[in-house]
Amino acid sequence: MRILTESDIEAIAIGAAILGTGGGGNPYIGKLRCLRELRRGKQVPLYSLGEVADDALVVPIGGIGAPVVSVEKIEEGHEGVRALRALEEFHGRKAFALIAAEIGGGNSMEPIVTAANAGIGVVDGDGMGRAFPEMQMTTYSIYGHRSTPAAIADERGNVVLFRHSMSELWYEKLARSTVVCMGGTAVGAEAPMPGKYVKRAAVPGTVTQAITLGNLVLQANRQHVSAIPLICKQERGLHLMDAKIVDLQRYLRGGFSVGEMSLEGIDDYAGSRARIEFQNEFLSFERAGRIEVCVPDLVVLLDVDSGHAITTDVLRYGQRVAIIALPCHPLLRTPEALAVVGPQAFGLENVQFRPLPR
Amino acid sequence: MRILTESDIEAIAIGAAILGTGGGGNPYIGKLRCLRELRRGKQVPLYSLGEVADDALVVPIGGIGAPVVSVEKIEEGHEGVRALRALEEFHGRKAFALIAAEIGGGNSMEPIVTAANAGIGVVDGDGMGRAFPEMQMTTYSIYGHRSTPAAIADERGNVVLFRHSMSELWYEKLARSTVVCMGGTAVGAEAPMPGKYVKRAAVPGTVTQAITLGNLVLQANRQHVSAIPLICKQERGLHLMDAKIVDLQRYLRGGFSVGEMSLEGIDDYAGSRARIEFQNEFLSFERAGRIEVCVPDLVVLLDVDSGHAITTDVLRYGQRVAIIALPCHPLLRTPEALAVVGPQAFGLENVQFRPLPR
Repeated sequence: MRILTESDIEAIAIGAAILGTGGGGNPYIGKLRCLRELRRGKQVPLYSLGEVADDALVVPIGGIGAPVVSVEKIEEGHEGVRALRALEEFHGRKAFALIAAEIGGGNSMEPIVTAANAGIGVVDGDGMGRAFPEMQMTTYSIYGHRSTPAAIADERGNVVLFRHSMSELWYEKLARSTVVCMGGTAVGAEAPMPGKYVKRAAVPGTVTQAITLGNLVLQANRQHVSAIPLICKQERGLHLMDAKIVDLQRYLRGGFSVGEMSLEGIDDYAGSRARIEFQNEFLSFERAGRIEVCVPDLVVLLDVDSGHAITTDVLRYGQRVAIIALPCHPLLRTPEALAVVGPQAFGLENVQFRPLPR
Repeated sequence: MRILTESDIEAIAIGAAILGTGGGGNPYIGKLRCLRELRRGKQVPLYSLGEVADDALVVPIGGIGAPVVSVEKIEEGHEGVRALRALEEFHGRKAFALIAAEIGGGNSMEPIVTAANAGIGVVDGDGMGRAFPEMQMTTYSIYGHRSTPAAIADERGNVVLFRHSMSELWYEKLARSTVVCMGGTAVGAEAPMPGKYVKRAAVPGTVTQAITLGNLVLQANRQHVSAIPLICKQERGLHLMDAKIVDLQRYLRGGFSVGEMSLEGIDDYAGSRARIEFQNEFLSFERAGRIEVCVPDLVVLLDVDSGHAITTDVLRYGQRVAIIALPCHPLLRTPEALAVVGPQAFGLENVQFRPLPR
């Protein structure tokens, strides 16, 4: 166990945005909220999976909704605590710690700020090792945990408890429509998991991974060198292309940021063209009519100068980006996982998942 | 207290449809469901308000959604019990009896079938004395009861508990979006009310009123006389017009059946024209450019021959109807009530509520 520091938070914001593959919400506001809590003297312990007792209750938590909305509709700050308390009230038992539903993007911050306010800790891991747009897409759900009873809270004080859902997909549908009704973003806490299950089903060490990645970028920035090869080396990733966004279609559908963009290679990549589809997160990278990388592996857009991640909510025409691909965790590559987070789950017909080497 | 009989159920179906002013759902399927339970030997006591102990818990219950959907998407039958049990589980206390959120239409049957399955009784009264399209429009809400925690259950087994809503309107919004997600209809049970409050805030005796009205129609049918003047006499109502529907606009918006129709007078009313607006229920009756009757008073369409009510989901071009107006209960005419169920609450701008004589 160690106590998270302000510099950890700064690093997580950068690293989690990279692992967010364009989604999971922009970590900026969540970072400010976490820093405020730490500066008020709140201490948030980070537990490794090995430090969680088998019967301890661990609650997955995260923001739900369209990243593009979360930039303008700011959280009030105690949404997560209200959702957590509704679950604890229901179970008649306190949570030992929180864990991110997804480490990617702003959802890396949600467990930390909620843990700070609830006086508990966070677990070093998450349910995606990246970000995905839907809630049944966690390793928690994939390996058998039922998300309900789950609670969703908005910034006004409304709290909805999903007492029982007939499937993980029904929970996703019901929760999504509630979030849309709440204005497009809210915070959700899912049914507590026993520590024993978390150790088996969570993607391990992803908070530390985000800290490492973030520090790498910060160090490269300080040394005025490109972070991109360092990130690829650290994560065994591929530098796919440097490019300019020459066309961008982005719209809100059912609470998601959905769209695609066309890219034209620059510098060493001049003359080549590529296409990226996204649903909150980048789903696929296509070049010369061939999908080179797709979900669940990570397609990441970085600012070509700073190496900071670019989220789908700030994409714009003319932007210069570096595109890299990172291999996902093996927990996302099993047949059970590919059925839920593979290309077909995102409507990418006729696309075969060819895993990147790890 | 008395036990509801099969002939009571037959009468309620007819009387409640009249009080439904076109909405509240068609009682036909609910009636069949109630009759099945009685024929299985289930007994449902009907308690007058005076028979409810001050500290007994009374749970308001009703179907939520668009009547036009409920005709095709049939309830599984135990939705109400699942919603009730979720509330009882939350409160750690059993309900003494159920009460209709609205007596109008199919929602008259929901408490009876649920009471039969839960082994409890129903209270002779309701929260509207008619039907209204939205849930904050009950006398329970108007006079200060908070509907949440409330539970909504669908036919699949999904149960959502609205743990806390910031207002009655927020409960309506959140519940409505959940019901739309569930496919357009579901059953909702709202926070239990103590008997003491029910005696003050419920519209009294409306189950008996529906039985009386229904028996009146049945008797007129047997005697081959028109039920229409008998209904008007019993309820101190006005016979406004006999007419043919010459234009009908009806569409689904946000889970409601919304629309308007134009009518041309027939027989004694030949040559006159009228217009009726509806949102699940008939909202207003306009003749010669003047609103003669509007919410919360009741505009009722009856089959010109049988005197049976016509619900908005079965309206059709060319239909011959009798239009009557019935005065609403005084609990709906206070300033607090008119703010919630008066013409402005339904977007009828510049319409002044002129109460029918009672």
